[in-house]
Amino acid sequence: MKTATAAQVKAWRKLKTRLERQAQGLFLVEGEHMVGEALAAGRVQHVLLDADKAERFSAFAASGAPCSALSAAQLKQVVDSRTPQGVAALVTLPPPPTLEQLGHRLVVLDGVQDPGNVGTILRTMDAAGFSGLLTDTRTADAFSQKALSASMGSIFRVGVHVTQDLPGALDSLSGFDIIAGHLQGEPFYERPRTGERVCLLIGSEGAGLSPQVLSRATLRVRLPMQGGAESLNAAVAAAIMMYDLYRETLMPNPM
Amino acid sequence: MKTATAAQVKAWRKLKTRLERQAQGLFLVEGEHMVGEALAAGRVQHVLLDADKAERFSAFAASGAPCSALSAAQLKQVVDSRTPQGVAALVTLPPPPTLEQLGHRLVVLDGVQDPGNVGTILRTMDAAGFSGLLTDTRTADAFSQKALSASMGSIFRVGVHVTQDLPGALDSLSGFDIIAGHLQGEPFYERPRTGERVCLLIGSEGAGLSPQVLSRATLRVRLPMQGGAESLNAAVAAAIMMYDLYRETLMPNPM
Repeated sequence: MKTATAAQVKAWRKLKTRLERQAQGLFLVEGEHMVGEALAAGRVQHVLLDADKAERFSAFAASGAPCSALSAAQLKQVVDSRTPQGVAALVTLPPPPTLEQLGHRLVVLDGVQDPGNVGTILRTMDAAGFSGLLTDTRTADAFSQKALSASMGSIFRVGVHVTQDLPGALDSLSGFDIIAGHLQGEPFYERPRTGERVCLLIGSEGAGLSPQVLSRATLRVRLPMQGGAESLNAAVAAAIMMYDLYRETLMPNPM
Repeated sequence: MKTATAAQVKAWRKLKTRLERQAQGLFLVEGEHMVGEALAAGRVQHVLLDADKAERFSAFAASGAPCSALSAAQLKQVVDSRTPQGVAALVTLPPPPTLEQLGHRLVVLDGVQDPGNVGTILRTMDAAGFSGLLTDTRTADAFSQKALSASMGSIFRVGVHVTQDLPGALDSLSGFDIIAGHLQGEPFYERPRTGERVCLLIGSEGAGLSPQVLSRATLRVRLPMQGGAESLNAAVAAAIMMYDLYRETLMPNPM
């Protein structure tokens, strides 16, 4: 195992911005679970270990990927976590899937700013059988460390396509039921059964969906709410709707 | 409007721990939305304003509650937020509700450690008509600033009861369907219809439910999962189950 050079550490530190991740074609994952998922996906370019904990993580050093030792202080500069576990990995940024490659069950994020919400939505998509995430450029990057950490490895199983023209991308989808949460929508649980191609629109935490994106919806639905609650967390609302759409696919078709 | 004394600031800073909140009988909320909710609930003991932003928040100063001005630096010491909005409030800690006062639709948290998850669960409970939260002492305190911030004011509408003996508290519930998520449970969407009294058990992010708590469940259910996903975020799993139990109450009873 080599010792990381100062120049390497400097380059890896820069991976905290989306621009630099794209320039280097790499992103960084932190912690035992995420590094394990990245190795299983065959996508690790370089394993980074805290030199003082190298023995504990010897399995990662033996994975076949190049491996470098860093001081605890260096590793802390590279990773975003306040309590680094002592293992990280540089992972090849996948070529962005085309819209077609995203599959038939999509989630669209329109200005979702919290990276934790983006990661949590990816994690739920993975579990609920949603195949592709389509986001605008205002949405927090799915390859940031905070989003990756919340995604629990689902970034390796769900395709992510980022576009500067979300309304245009929605226009190019063919045969999709495009579902938007909306206060004036019809009751969610009384909605008509959706087809095989489903696209769920999720708006920003504060402002909801932009008018241009909302106008592309083929169905507006409203989740019921009791009491004084005005809204749900964006990742929670997405999860409730994704899972009920998933439930629908498990039920026998009444036709 | 008075200027806060150094002794006051010192006392308010201490409100970051559960022990001190209980000793002073107060908790602290931050930001326009939360202070507005606290005032609407009639529970504000003292409004705290950033002296430089006092004009912008003059409506809060005129609320009738005592109001003090702090420097931006002092306010930053008192609140947990990295980007304080300039307004906070000291709120009377409510007397803890008895188990009976929690109502008929409960969520139980067994070692849920992320305060954001606890607050998000409170927010979803409020929307889905769940009336009471029962937690063990390992669970993150619902009155911490991080939990309050995620709860979006629902702390003023959902009762919270903390116990050192969760299994004992569950034993004292009468006539409840006690539902636990469990990998060997029956498919969640094929569960029998539940009665009016429902109690949903949510375990810790890492370890799930403790055996003692799990043994009190009258029904073990498993959320379906596709792909490589092994689990869901705790607040997400809670939300999916709460909302489907809520959906059930909206459906005509087949009997």
